[in-house]
Amino acid sequence: MSEISLEKLLAGDARTVARAITRIENGVEGSADLMKAVFPRTGNAVVIGITGSPGAGKSSLVDKLALHYKDKGDRIGIVCIDPSSPFSGGAILGDRIRMATLGLDKNVFIRSMATRGNLGGLSRATVDAVAILDAAGFDKVIVETVGVGQDEVEIVKTADVSVVVLVPGMGDDIQAIKAGIMEIGDVFVINKADREGVLRTQKELEALLSLAHRPDMWDPPIVRTIATENKGIEDLAAAIESYKDFVSTGTEAAATRKFAVARWRLIELLQESLIRELMETNGKSEEIDSLAGRIAKREIDPYTAIEKILGRK
Amino acid sequence: MSEISLEKLLAGDARTVARAITRIENGVEGSADLMKAVFPRTGNAVVIGITGSPGAGKSSLVDKLALHYKDKGDRIGIVCIDPSSPFSGGAILGDRIRMATLGLDKNVFIRSMATRGNLGGLSRATVDAVAILDAAGFDKVIVETVGVGQDEVEIVKTADVSVVVLVPGMGDDIQAIKAGIMEIGDVFVINKADREGVLRTQKELEALLSLAHRPDMWDPPIVRTIATENKGIEDLAAAIESYKDFVSTGTEAAATRKFAVARWRLIELLQESLIRELMETNGKSEEIDSLAGRIAKREIDPYTAIEKILGRK
Repeated sequence: MSEISLEKLLAGDARTVARAITRIENGVEGSADLMKAVFPRTGNAVVIGITGSPGAGKSSLVDKLALHYKDKGDRIGIVCIDPSSPFSGGAILGDRIRMATLGLDKNVFIRSMATRGNLGGLSRATVDAVAILDAAGFDKVIVETVGVGQDEVEIVKTADVSVVVLVPGMGDDIQAIKAGIMEIGDVFVINKADREGVLRTQKELEALLSLAHRPDMWDPPIVRTIATENKGIEDLAAAIESYKDFVSTGTEAAATRKFAVARWRLIELLQESLIRELMETNGKSEEIDSLAGRIAKREIDPYTAIEKILGRK
Repeated sequence: MSEISLEKLLAGDARTVARAITRIENGVEGSADLMKAVFPRTGNAVVIGITGSPGAGKSSLVDKLALHYKDKGDRIGIVCIDPSSPFSGGAILGDRIRMATLGLDKNVFIRSMATRGNLGGLSRATVDAVAILDAAGFDKVIVETVGVGQDEVEIVKTADVSVVVLVPGMGDDIQAIKAGIMEIGDVFVINKADREGVLRTQKELEALLSLAHRPDMWDPPIVRTIATENKGIEDLAAAIESYKDFVSTGTEAAATRKFAVARWRLIELLQESLIRELMETNGKSEEIDSLAGRIAKREIDPYTAIEKILGRK
């Protein structure tokens, strides 16, 4: 494994940043020294998490928001979390299309985190990638999730500001209410706001938000956008800024959230380290494969199998 | 912790089933004996995984499919995976509404798995809940995900038949293509098929599927439904049946998938067991909290913290 120049990384060199992210994607063991060196240089970027269901137009919205920041002189990093299966290379094509839109220059960096890896660690890798971009001097780091699920919700919660994107016409579905993404939004966007039903969606969203009890008493703004026409992007940037200002007053809720995020991240890292250590123990990897084969054939149950692997009983 | 009667569980007693699922949700350590006893009695149910983005009408579709099976004399279990945060009790209301639709009788059991738990384990708990319903004599077990993300995709992959639900009008969005859920679908549904754009969505889906390379050469059927009007539900049941028949011929691809699922499940279980063991070690839980506090204050980086916890360096 070749060395990654910390100097080049901190100077924001795109190729070095890309190689660093590849390294942390490949697993926890090569990441430690790099991340220890990077950590003291982080804390300057504003990290914006953007989630919402597929079809809500998140990519367009992120691209337009990135262009808005770029025009103001910011450097922007985009990390895109894609639930593609490990078999797919789908994300790469998407990145190329988007780079063409955003313009290939040193002020915009885009990277899809497509694969989860053999031993999990997508969340850990994503948070580390954000830290790398932060240390590399990007002013804004946008974390965009393609899907919206358990992992995605947790990753978006690690951002400084979480944005939830909806579209008109979703509100008639009980899933939209149950989706549980409501309470992670610091800012809400109704995109495709030229579609029918925008008023109804806004009313329903307002009703839902009025039922929510945020410990910090923040009242999340609702912004209407038409990303494809570049409409409402300034309002979105202003809403993000207003929440950032609110948090910077140092509320107790913000401190609680920071602690929860740090603890969650630590436990993810520990899980990945522990399983990796186990797999690297002599013969354990083969034992796991062999037992998995027996479970698949229904010859043994998984709980008895883990007792064997861990040497209990 | 009171004992769970295996006899009552195997007889399909709803309260016993509910208590068993609560136990496996609460963590890996109380689950082992129960799951070891349950495992030999599993393998009879057809497990159907249903995923798709919020707003696609999955709940209605699942309810109508369950009623279809019920009318044919089947007993149906429904496990619903909800990305609600641990702070929310939103799932319970939803279950009540749905029970009213489905009818409260011993032939339909519905349960939301709303919380991930402190140490992860949502996927493990879901797979165990399915096994419990299987052992309790439910003929069909439907696993429905509210969100669609990394975890949800992996959970749905553990089903015998995976159904992906789309709605017209999503196809114009590059996210729909990137969403990576395409390749997990054994059966595709275009729900709300009375909406504008259904033909276009079908064409785009066909084009995408023609690009996919399934190792088993299965050509996934596309079914149009209007769940709210109970239209297309028989076609969906027939499509599910046709894939099940196809797999029962015993393809190599099916064996590979079974092995991959077993291995993934084993590693999930191992991760949960390892972290729980660590947390139960004297003082480790307090050390983790204390280090998380220092990470939140940026006094230490997470990688140095795990070395301290694991006693390295």
